[in-house]
Amino acid sequence: MQRILSIVMSSLLAVTVLTGCGKQESQTPSPAVAAKKMQTYQWKLVTSWPKNFPGLGVAPEKFAKLVGEMSAGRLTIQVYGAGELVPGFEVFDTVSQGTVQMGHSGSYYWKGKIPASPIFGAIPFGMTATELNAWLHHGGGLELWQELYKPFGIIPMAGGNSGAQFAGWFKKEINSMADLAGLKMRIPGLGGEVLKRAGAIPITLTGGEIFSSLQSGAIDATEWVGPYNDLAFGFYQAADYYYSSIWHEPGTGLEFLINEKAYASLPKDLQKIIEVAARAVNEDTLDEYNARNNAALQTLIEKHNVQLRTLPDSVLAGLKAHTDEVINEQVAADEDFARVWQSYSAFMKSIRHYHDTTLKAYLNNR
Amino acid sequence: MQRILSIVMSSLLAVTVLTGCGKQESQTPSPAVAAKKMQTYQWKLVTSWPKNFPGLGVAPEKFAKLVGEMSAGRLTIQVYGAGELVPGFEVFDTVSQGTVQMGHSGSYYWKGKIPASPIFGAIPFGMTATELNAWLHHGGGLELWQELYKPFGIIPMAGGNSGAQFAGWFKKEINSMADLAGLKMRIPGLGGEVLKRAGAIPITLTGGEIFSSLQSGAIDATEWVGPYNDLAFGFYQAADYYYSSIWHEPGTGLEFLINEKAYASLPKDLQKIIEVAARAVNEDTLDEYNARNNAALQTLIEKHNVQLRTLPDSVLAGLKAHTDEVINEQVAADEDFARVWQSYSAFMKSIRHYHDTTLKAYLNNR
Repeated sequence: MQRILSIVMSSLLAVTVLTGCGKQESQTPSPAVAAKKMQTYQWKLVTSWPKNFPGLGVAPEKFAKLVGEMSAGRLTIQVYGAGELVPGFEVFDTVSQGTVQMGHSGSYYWKGKIPASPIFGAIPFGMTATELNAWLHHGGGLELWQELYKPFGIIPMAGGNSGAQFAGWFKKEINSMADLAGLKMRIPGLGGEVLKRAGAIPITLTGGEIFSSLQSGAIDATEWVGPYNDLAFGFYQAADYYYSSIWHEPGTGLEFLINEKAYASLPKDLQKIIEVAARAVNEDTLDEYNARNNAALQTLIEKHNVQLRTLPDSVLAGLKAHTDEVINEQVAADEDFARVWQSYSAFMKSIRHYHDTTLKAYLNNR
Repeated sequence: MQRILSIVMSSLLAVTVLTGCGKQESQTPSPAVAAKKMQTYQWKLVTSWPKNFPGLGVAPEKFAKLVGEMSAGRLTIQVYGAGELVPGFEVFDTVSQGTVQMGHSGSYYWKGKIPASPIFGAIPFGMTATELNAWLHHGGGLELWQELYKPFGIIPMAGGNSGAQFAGWFKKEINSMADLAGLKMRIPGLGGEVLKRAGAIPITLTGGEIFSSLQSGAIDATEWVGPYNDLAFGFYQAADYYYSSIWHEPGTGLEFLINEKAYASLPKDLQKIIEVAARAVNEDTLDEYNARNNAALQTLIEKHNVQLRTLPDSVLAGLKAHTDEVINEQVAADEDFARVWQSYSAFMKSIRHYHDTTLKAYLNNR
């Protein structure tokens, strides 16, 4: 061993002398630091998505790759699709218990445990992807999110945004609020609560269960993500009408879930590598959805003869009115919801004013 | 030395045994790898912005901090404001020559050298921030950008987006195209070329020179960034009218410039750390601008009595017509411009269709 170590030290010297660009210094790290630096960690990450599913499923794979490369293999993360280790809806509990170190999912799936959780993902008639990112990272949103997940031993981070979600796939046309009555629709989160007020029957299913339910008639309608993902699931084979109107998830934020103790066990540089990789993947996922959605929409319309529709103004107004009811009830029922909603809605009011002046005016003028 | 090294090995063993979360392994790295891992690098980064200026100047500081933390101090980057090491407009040449390893600037400043460079930053009546990011990262834009900077020995990366830029500050109201004739306005890039067609006199100044020029009457008008930055520069003290209308820079992408040889001299993990930190800062800067702009706009209007105006439709239409002329001339004059424009405009056409269906409809309905 002494021979090996003396080779280490002499080649360290050689590299220091030979390199030509920028100033370089050799350092002899303390024994404890050197040991920690050589230590490797192998983590597991469970998701709510089919393995490698476009966008949603690819995001944690990208994250794991970046972490592996930035850490030079000191932290490797194995990604599991829904059902491979645990079912898609058990991601939160599994990370909370520490059975695995990480998860990737959508915060609205946990509204049974944490009523305010959907606010960190998507709110009907709420903020767009870029607005949500601004609130999370520069408006106090992330701090509230971390506070609410802390009792479960989980650190949340933004984990990608799938952008504006289409209203969904329907077996019949929707021409009035009356057409929603009795409709069995797969839709999670607060959007589901809103539809319930309109007389529909919201059903929560993971991605992998939707297509067969729609085809069999177990459900009459479904929303999922947007053209890029909806094409991948082949929903056009089971429903003729595709409604583009954005209302229930104007910019859906995904989440990385990190077991607090596992995170604490890492050296500081690996903790920072996780944080920054998550942030990079957060943008990259939105970039990818924005880039892919239109091509997929064209394919759906031109190749698969999908009928693109928009919801009538009366239906959008009806859904908006029910949204206000649902949110007011949640605010009254849950202190944390009220507190998070206060922060979210104040920020939304301000950024809406700014975006009305700028982005909206520009999109209408260009 | 043998004693120190045997302590290293035994404490490595201790850490491996003691840690409780996840699987861990000890590894004995090869001598060359261990040497490279202990090597440290000290880089310099020059910018076109005043030191620590909100948004623009803070972005490279954040980047340097993330790189330092993720690399556990193996790569430290010292950031210099415009004029500290070199003037703001010499960033490109300085990085190209390798005098410093990195820069942070705006690509449109280099249109004298590379006529197509503004396309990677902002195009009048072009893509918004999120659309530009989608094109750069999932539409082939970044590859073209890297190709065009390669002859200069520079690797470009997206370095933040300041969002939609206001039309700017004017000493008089603009009610028609005729009001633009003879106007001396600080405006760089293709926006300046467009204004020249309208009879104005575009002038390029770095940030630090604008306020005094506006106050002295050397210029009649200026655009800069948006309320967050424009408030910081105090332009309201020198011009009464603030025009919100977005036209010349609908979403301005900034850039990191990296000397190719300096980058090549780094081990792969540090290269990846630079790439991912740049990507994280790219989103964070947009998040920050989106979060701060509206509060700053309110302050300008309510505290400083700024008159907020919009350009008449006839002026926007006139500027749009001149934009088409300018772009057609650039396409005819420069092969690279034509090639990059082909990619940009095809992507813009596609994503506009998608955003008309989704984001624009939503902003108009919500």
